[in-house]
Amino acid sequence: MIGGGQLARMMVPPAIHLGLRISVLAENEGSSAERAADAVGDYRDPETVYAFAETVDVVTFDHEHVPQAILRELESRGVAVHPRPEALQYAQDKIVMREKLAELGVPIPDWAAVADEAELQAFLEAHGGRAVVKTARGGYDGKGVRVVSDAAEVRDWFTALAEDGNGGHLLVEELVDFVRELSQLVARRPSGETRTWPVVETIQRDGVCAEVLAPAPTDRPAVLDEAARIGATVAEGVAVTGVLAVEMFETRDGRVLVNELAMRPHNSGHFSIEGSVTSQFEQHLRAVADLPLGDTSMTAPAAVMVNVLGGPAEGPMPVRYPEALAAHPRAKFHSYDKQPRPGRKVGHVTVTGERLDEVRAEATAAARRFA
Amino acid sequence: MIGGGQLARMMVPPAIHLGLRISVLAENEGSSAERAADAVGDYRDPETVYAFAETVDVVTFDHEHVPQAILRELESRGVAVHPRPEALQYAQDKIVMREKLAELGVPIPDWAAVADEAELQAFLEAHGGRAVVKTARGGYDGKGVRVVSDAAEVRDWFTALAEDGNGGHLLVEELVDFVRELSQLVARRPSGETRTWPVVETIQRDGVCAEVLAPAPTDRPAVLDEAARIGATVAEGVAVTGVLAVEMFETRDGRVLVNELAMRPHNSGHFSIEGSVTSQFEQHLRAVADLPLGDTSMTAPAAVMVNVLGGPAEGPMPVRYPEALAAHPRAKFHSYDKQPRPGRKVGHVTVTGERLDEVRAEATAAARRFA
Repeated sequence: MIGGGQLARMMVPPAIHLGLRISVLAENEGSSAERAADAVGDYRDPETVYAFAETVDVVTFDHEHVPQAILRELESRGVAVHPRPEALQYAQDKIVMREKLAELGVPIPDWAAVADEAELQAFLEAHGGRAVVKTARGGYDGKGVRVVSDAAEVRDWFTALAEDGNGGHLLVEELVDFVRELSQLVARRPSGETRTWPVVETIQRDGVCAEVLAPAPTDRPAVLDEAARIGATVAEGVAVTGVLAVEMFETRDGRVLVNELAMRPHNSGHFSIEGSVTSQFEQHLRAVADLPLGDTSMTAPAAVMVNVLGGPAEGPMPVRYPEALAAHPRAKFHSYDKQPRPGRKVGHVTVTGERLDEVRAEATAAARRFA
Repeated sequence: MIGGGQLARMMVPPAIHLGLRISVLAENEGSSAERAADAVGDYRDPETVYAFAETVDVVTFDHEHVPQAILRELESRGVAVHPRPEALQYAQDKIVMREKLAELGVPIPDWAAVADEAELQAFLEAHGGRAVVKTARGGYDGKGVRVVSDAAEVRDWFTALAEDGNGGHLLVEELVDFVRELSQLVARRPSGETRTWPVVETIQRDGVCAEVLAPAPTDRPAVLDEAARIGATVAEGVAVTGVLAVEMFETRDGRVLVNELAMRPHNSGHFSIEGSVTSQFEQHLRAVADLPLGDTSMTAPAAVMVNVLGGPAEGPMPVRYPEALAAHPRAKFHSYDKQPRPGRKVGHVTVTGERLDEVRAEATAAARRFA
C-alpha cells in the first residue's frame, strides 16, 4: 500500500485476520499506519516506488496521488497495480472524470473546463451568477473547492495553473439544489466480480464529512435504487479494481447527480468495519488480491459513523478514554494516532443497533467527548 | 504482551483501532504475531523480560508460562503486570488452582495431589478404577492429560517429577459424567469493574477445542445461570485482571463443575471478534490498561466458531482462499500465518446469524475447506 494515512492503518486489521501480509510505503516516520510501514519515502520519486514495488505481489493505494508515469512504468515492469492507472486517472483529475461520466451517460451537474477568467465568467452568467469552482487535481476535504460569484475570486488558481506550464483548466460546476448527499461504495475485482454496500447518507460540515448514516434513511426508495444503479454503472465504466466511492447529490426534485469519485476505501465506508459482514477495508484487500469478495449485508438495521475532528488539546483520542469509554460502552472508538489540529480527522466513532435515531444520538454523543 | 502466538496476533487489530500501542516479546522470528513483534527472546530469561518491560506501560501475556520469580521482580520494580502474579499462579499450577477453587466453594470434580504411584492407585480404587491424571504445569490442548486405569500409565511423569528435584505432585481427578462443556469468559479491570459474555458451549475433539457455540443453546437455563455465577465467583476470587476463561462441565444431572481456568483471551472467546460488541481481545486491552470495559452483548442471535486444525499440505490457509471465500461469502476467516502440522491450530472461521443450526452448518463447511 502506497500511503501511510488512516486508510492504510485500517487496512492492517483485516490483513492480519485474513493472513495476508501488508506492507506500507509511508510518507514519513510516525505516520498513522506506522505499525505496517516497512518503507518510508516520497511516492512522487520513481525509484522509491519501484524499489518498494519489488517487495510485494500487488500495489495499491491509500490516496490517488501517485503520478501516472510511475504507475504506468510499474505495469510495464510487470507489477500488478490496483486500481489500474487507466482507472485511477478518473480519480486523479476531476475534468477527465467529468468527461468520462458524460460519456457513460451518468447524470452530473452542468460543468465546464475553463482556461481563464473570461470563460469562467461566461459560465457564471449562464448559471445564475454563482457556481462551484474546483482545481482539477489535488483537492480533498473541501480544499481546492470554492463557491464564487465573480471569476476574480479564483485569480490565484488561474495564475498558479499558468505558472506550472501545463496550460491546465479549472473545473466549474453549477450549484446544485440538493437536499442531501449520498454515497455508494462498490468493490470490484480484476476478474469483474462486483459487490455493493447499501447506499449511505453522508453529512458534511465545512466541506468535510461529519457523519454517515447507513443505510441512508428514505421515503423515496426509488432514489436509492437510482443511486445504486449509478454506482454500478460507474464502477463498470471506469473498470475500477478495489473499492470505489461514488459521492452523489440527491436533488429536491428526486434526481441523483454524481459529485465526486474516490478510488479507495472512503470515509463514507468506515461504518462497514462494524456495520457490514465484510468491511470496505477487508473487501479492498480481497479485490486487489483478486480473491472472491465477501458479503456486504448490514450486521444490524442501522449503523452511524461520526468523525472526530481536531480532538482535544491534550493529545490524541486515548487521553479522553476514561470518560468516553465509561459513558459509551456500545460505541466503537477508532483513533488514527494523529496529533490533533483544528479540522483534522483524528478518528471516528461507530455505533450499530436497531433504531437509526438512537444509534445516531449515541454515536454523536460519544464523538463529542473528544471535541 | 509477552508471547507471540495467535492470541497476541489477534490483539493487534483492536490495539490499532483504539490507538493503543502494542509491543510483543515473541519467542522467535516468524511468530504468529510477527507484525507487532518488537523484541524476540526467551520469556524464561529474566534480563530479556526486564529489558522488554522497560519499553512499555503495562505487561500482559498471551500464555501463562512466565515464571513467578520474574513476574514478582517486575512488580517490585514498579512495572504494572496484568494479570498480577498472585492471580496468574492459579492458571500456572493446576493443583494450586484446585486448592483455591475449593477454598472459594466452587464446585469441582473430586481431586487429589498425588506424589507417587501408590497414592494414585488409591485414588483410582476409590473412584471406580479410572481417573484423569494431569501434570500440574505446562499442559495445553490435551497435552499433559491422560485417562488412566493403572498408576503405572503415568510412571514416566512421576519419574520426571522426581528428576526435576522439586518434589512435585501430579493432579488426579474423578472422571465426570458430563453431557457437554461450557465456558464463561469474564473480563475484570484492576479497579474491579467486571463484564461477562454469554456462556458458550465448547466442543472438543481429541482434547482440542473444535467448535464454540455462542450463546450455549439450552433447555435448562438454570444451568447457564449457575455457570455464569461460578464464572463471576472465580473472577472475583482469584482477583484476575484481564480476560479469564472458566471452562466447565455440565453433568447429566444438571450440575456445573469447573474444569480449567485460562487467564488470557481463550479459544472459547474467538467468536467474540464478530459475535460481540466488544471482542475478548479488545476487552483484554481495555482491562489491562485499566480502561472502562465495553459492552459484551451479542451482535447477532448466534455465532459459531470452528477451528482450522493442521490445514492443507500446500501451506497456510490463504492457499485455499479462492475456493473457500467464493463458497462462503458470509464466513469470517482468520489465519494465524502458521505452517500447518497435524492437529496444530492454524486458524479459525466464524459465522454469525439468526439461527444456530444454519450458522453452525455454514461455519463447519467453511472450516472444512482447509482440512
